[in-house]
Amino acid sequence: MLKDMLLNVRKKAPLIHSITNNVTANDCANILLACGASAIMAEAPEEVEEITAICAGSNLNMGTLNQQKKEALLKAGKKANELGHPVVLDPVGVGASAFRNETAKELLEQVKFAIIRGNISEMKTILTLVGGDGGEGADSQTSRGVDAVIGESVTRENLPEVVAFAKDLAKKTGAIIAITGTIDVVADDKQAYCIFNGHEMMRSVTGSGCQLSALIAAYVTANQDKTLEATAAAVCAMGICGEKAFARLGAEDGNATYRNYIIDAVYRLDGVELERNAKFEIY
Amino acid sequence: MLKDMLLNVRKKAPLIHSITNNVTANDCANILLACGASAIMAEAPEEVEEITAICAGSNLNMGTLNQQKKEALLKAGKKANELGHPVVLDPVGVGASAFRNETAKELLEQVKFAIIRGNISEMKTILTLVGGDGGEGADSQTSRGVDAVIGESVTRENLPEVVAFAKDLAKKTGAIIAITGTIDVVADDKQAYCIFNGHEMMRSVTGSGCQLSALIAAYVTANQDKTLEATAAAVCAMGICGEKAFARLGAEDGNATYRNYIIDAVYRLDGVELERNAKFEIY
Amino acid sequence: MLKDMLLNVRKKAPLIHSITNNVTANDCANILLACGASAIMAEAPEEVEEITAICAGSNLNMGTLNQQKKEALLKAGKKANELGHPVVLDPVGVGASAFRNETAKELLEQVKFAIIRGNISEMKTILTLVGGDGGEGADSQTSRGVDAVIGESVTRENLPEVVAFAKDLAKKTGAIIAITGTIDVVADDKQAYCIFNGHEMMRSVTGSGCQLSALIAAYVTANQDKTLEATAAAVCAMGICGEKAFARLGAEDGNATYRNYIIDAVYRLDGVELERNAKFEIY
Repeated sequence: MLKDMLLNVRKKAPLIHSITNNVTANDCANILLACGASAIMAEAPEEVEEITAICAGSNLNMGTLNQQKKEALLKAGKKANELGHPVVLDPVGVGASAFRNETAKELLEQVKFAIIRGNISEMKTILTLVGGDGGEGADSQTSRGVDAVIGESVTRENLPEVVAFAKDLAKKTGAIIAITGTIDVVADDKQAYCIFNGHEMMRSVTGSGCQLSALIAAYVTANQDKTLEATAAAVCAMGICGEKAFARLGAEDGNATYRNYIIDAVYRLDGVELERNAKFEIY
Repeated sequence: MLKDMLLNVRKKAPLIHSITNNVTANDCANILLACGASAIMAEAPEEVEEITAICAGSNLNMGTLNQQKKEALLKAGKKANELGHPVVLDPVGVGASAFRNETAKELLEQVKFAIIRGNISEMKTILTLVGGDGGEGADSQTSRGVDAVIGESVTRENLPEVVAFAKDLAKKTGAIIAITGTIDVVADDKQAYCIFNGHEMMRSVTGSGCQLSALIAAYVTANQDKTLEATAAAVCAMGICGEKAFARLGAEDGNATYRNYIIDAVYRLDGVELERNAKFEIY
Repeated sequence: MLKDMLLNVRKKAPLIHSITNNVTANDCANILLACGASAIMAEAPEEVEEITAICAGSNLNMGTLNQQKKEALLKAGKKANELGHPVVLDPVGVGASAFRNETAKELLEQVKFAIIRGNISEMKTILTLVGGDGGEGADSQTSRGVDAVIGESVTRENLPEVVAFAKDLAKKTGAIIAITGTIDVVADDKQAYCIFNGHEMMRSVTGSGCQLSALIAAYVTANQDKTLEATAAAVCAMGICGEKAFARLGAEDGNATYRNYIIDAVYRLDGVELERNAKFEIY
């Protein structure tokens, strides 16, 4: 039941260590507090292992990357693995620069992620980085198929292909894959939730994806025996909050008020609402 | 027509690379999304050139400066020049430290800016940096006159002197000069828009200037054949949004709600409103 | 009179130099503007001394610490001391890592702070760092007593012990101690204000403590002859604003709107309201 996922966050109030970015750090912290988790942000290589150690889960976000943050991401991820904490990767902007690609590659090689969340374009790059582009032992057809069939967005039409892609990527990475966009696909190697919540205006809020990754970290940390369902619950929760927030907007409200109302909705969301309003199909 | 400037932003949705600062990065991203542009923030010297290359315009802001950001600003600016992208300089705090002055000087020497936006005090420092203070070949009278005649704000009384100063600085830098304050002056070397929109409460919102620089980058990038008019349109748009947002405030609202309402107003602003409410004189 | 403290901030509009953190920098700047002060943020070691020199007071916050920021904190603090400016220390997360402890220790050794603000847990660590844990010449009973008697929160029951602890720490550091939580204790070595304003929902707003430290810096800078009363006034002001903001919340509002309303309330707060609604006892 999705609602149990939410209730466990509120009950356990997990402390989440986020290494995020200068643009959305405040929103990520506030959405963690909104859902009932606690937040700590630390990004100096000198201290990230100690900070990770006092937390229960980690949210590693590659936005506004630099060398120091890269080092911190690697250290925090490895420490979290050592301690058995779930780790979320948000590979912001992967594919946009060699530095981001190289960083994502090192992270994928050295850290075991519980969840990887990104848009379809970032996720296609992730497939390439884990050898899905025809490297030794990789299924070269899959990734070539991805570019040709899926394109740059997830639609009703290409949903079967995206589901197959997500399951394949889940298998290759050992992580739950959360591809978010107009339709969200959350999959492990066997099963995929296709989620139809959300509102297109969410694209007008900077960092709505970063915020979702933080939310996923909270949900998964509080529900470690059900990481697939917990990830799906977080994605549904964010989408439902986007719908509720949109419904509150007046004629003069724009994306700044919308940003606030989404976080407000996360603060107010209860398990019954989540259960009732979640729209998904399982494949 | 100013409204065409706005409509082109919405139609072309230019991707703007901002190197901004830790204080206002989120607001800068949200105002870019509000006006219809797209936003990407990257500031590692390792990747800024690649990020610049996938964008259409650049917004370079010197706030919370450090050595790494300085290097990134220089690299991004030069790359944008190479690609023919318009580049906005926001010399935040120039004049306040030798490090900011030296950075601004190097930027002005190595990068060709399409627009420089700042308050009158920052702009007077810029004049000094480009040799307007009596260095070899400079018109020493101009800059001495500036300090004596203009002082620290732009008023109806000193407007002719500010217009002359702005045109002179435009000539010396090759950039459009946007001096913002109670009255805004946007000038190239021949023509100046004196803009009377805005509300004094905008000074109570941190980073309203940074946000305007981001907005200018979007407008100019979408209107590269009319950079002077596009800059004036962005400045009018911001001022009109400051007026509209102020009109929405209730008795208990303060600068935080005002901040949100300004961005909301940018999200809602249409071309007809911009055209109708813009208050300017051309000299 | 507390109200004079507020009026002096509005009258003198002190320029405050904040070295704060990536998560809450924007809120800290906006709360400074809200209370009537001015804000500047600079954190490069290359320039912090010059920036400090043009300001009237300093707010040094250890959040999202790194080596560069550590160096900047030390330089800015020493320069402020040299100039006789009041300096606030917000030792965010001290106790959570060796790096934060070592940084706080160096700051406490090299900078004379006018005020140290933190929660009870951070403050217990501060006591340890200044030798209150039984180091040579320290009163070992005090700090052992602290852990046993006070625990992790300030309550009506342990208030006498917290007051004694705060006065002792004030004596050891030479600073006014502001311990904030459900009950706030603001003390020098002789006198303690126990403050009962505020609302528990403030814990759901990230950086409400950072914002309070910024506010204290403004109040103390504008009232240098009455630093204890000024600190108490700032703490009461923040608490009253938390109460007022809570009273405005509608059924759908959550912590994001609450965040805005608190800053709004600081913007609107007047001296009479502060005087009338402040709830404190002096011991």
